[in-house]
Amino acid sequence: MKFVRFGPAGREKVGCIDARGELRDLSSAVADLNLPTLGQSGLRKLARLKPEDFPKVKGRPRQGVPFTGISKLVGIGLNYRDHAIEAGMAIPAEPIVFMKATSCISGPQDPVLRPAGSAKLDWEVELGVVIGKTARSVSLEKALDHVAGYCVVNDVSERSFQLERGGTWDKGKGCDSFGPIGPWLVTRDEVPDPQSLALWLDVNGEQRQRGNTATMIFGVAEIVSYLSRFMTLLPGDVICTGTPPGVGAGMKPEPKFLQDGDVMTLGIAGLGEQRLKVQPT
Amino acid sequence: MKFVRFGPAGREKVGCIDARGELRDLSSAVADLNLPTLGQSGLRKLARLKPEDFPKVKGRPRQGVPFTGISKLVGIGLNYRDHAIEAGMAIPAEPIVFMKATSCISGPQDPVLRPAGSAKLDWEVELGVVIGKTARSVSLEKALDHVAGYCVVNDVSERSFQLERGGTWDKGKGCDSFGPIGPWLVTRDEVPDPQSLALWLDVNGEQRQRGNTATMIFGVAEIVSYLSRFMTLLPGDVICTGTPPGVGAGMKPEPKFLQDGDVMTLGIAGLGEQRLKVQPT
Repeated sequence: MKFVRFGPAGREKVGCIDARGELRDLSSAVADLNLPTLGQSGLRKLARLKPEDFPKVKGRPRQGVPFTGISKLVGIGLNYRDHAIEAGMAIPAEPIVFMKATSCISGPQDPVLRPAGSAKLDWEVELGVVIGKTARSVSLEKALDHVAGYCVVNDVSERSFQLERGGTWDKGKGCDSFGPIGPWLVTRDEVPDPQSLALWLDVNGEQRQRGNTATMIFGVAEIVSYLSRFMTLLPGDVICTGTPPGVGAGMKPEPKFLQDGDVMTLGIAGLGEQRLKVQPT
Repeated sequence: MKFVRFGPAGREKVGCIDARGELRDLSSAVADLNLPTLGQSGLRKLARLKPEDFPKVKGRPRQGVPFTGISKLVGIGLNYRDHAIEAGMAIPAEPIVFMKATSCISGPQDPVLRPAGSAKLDWEVELGVVIGKTARSVSLEKALDHVAGYCVVNDVSERSFQLERGGTWDKGKGCDSFGPIGPWLVTRDEVPDPQSLALWLDVNGEQRQRGNTATMIFGVAEIVSYLSRFMTLLPGDVICTGTPPGVGAGMKPEPKFLQDGDVMTLGIAGLGEQRLKVQPT
């Protein structure tokens, strides 16, 4: 099932995308897609509903974050072999972990706000892994049992805040609107192999990122298992699994960053697309 | 007012400490001390209650985290001048920011769980600043208006996970039970000067940390104002403001770390005490 939440911010209804790509209103069946409340079994039940039994939604309502109950937004750094090589960085021996403040989460069409003092605003299309079942020290073999599904995440980053202002990366990763999630939560049964998904991102229609989850250094199962040894992952938690080549900071002959008015379009095969306009805070 | 939450984990009631230091049951006045729901004004109303009007609590029930609704647990690194000197580190030019996973939060008497593979488990007594009102790019002058109160936090850290496993500090800061908070939420009106509070921590009754918030490099108002430019602080969010001298990693002639069975006792003048026993996960 491809779940969505649509409508004005704070008043979203639950919907899904039918076989023809049309939006259906599931609000008669479920009030909200809160993953901690639903749990893995509740989500599975909902995923068995037939979209055709529910009314089509007219018009083009705003798309919200496709689920609620995100208590942690965990990032994995430098996780694509080709991106690490492009950046001239060593291949990490184990996953690089950072955290994005959950107050940065926004919808897949909401504006990206350039913070005051920001001059190095950058993009990162990433596969988002959505936890469905509490994961605490889980084995590699069982790791995917704890995954509810997948989504598109843009790990928006301010490179000077991240790298030039002292401290850890977190300072440049968690500004408001730096975590667009969605448009869809695609349940795991519809993504038989998370390690063969094409990712892309354009800025103002110009190609910036092209990649495939096949070149991840640490795959989804390995990341879930690894992280679960350092922190308990809860239903609704989202892991941003790293970005493929083509970020602004890596552009040649010189880096290019986002300006007010720029439009990012990005997506992952089978997981939908985001369209994000940059504007000042 | 000194608010507490007492009782079995997940079923805590709200209470307060009266002028004689005795626990009173406020549950007839308020079901939970959820800061996002109460907001600054709701908390102020509760703080005007007279403890003597409420029944004394018999026995010594478990102490829980004194409030709920913590969406972010933000850490400030190397924020005590004497600790930075002791550690041989440069005085930071601006606050070092990291994040603790909220799944690490635990009560002030709950066990601290040594994770599998941990050999460098360390302690950090810290002044916790509790946000009461949404803070987004607030000025230094107005910063304290956004503070609901203060509490004791132990920023438990695993030094090898934090410093030797690649990536940012977050890997060694957010393991389950690494965030004991409480016993009290002391409202701001009872802490006229947050920059003159004595902090202490002992291990098995031996003195380890002694300090005073007077030697903070960046004071509470400065930290709140600074952070609010990088992320929106929400009611219930907690900032761990850094630790004074005396952590295990800095001990001479060689570092000393926590072993199973060790007991940490720690406190801050006027904010209460924690007692935490280390046990394996």
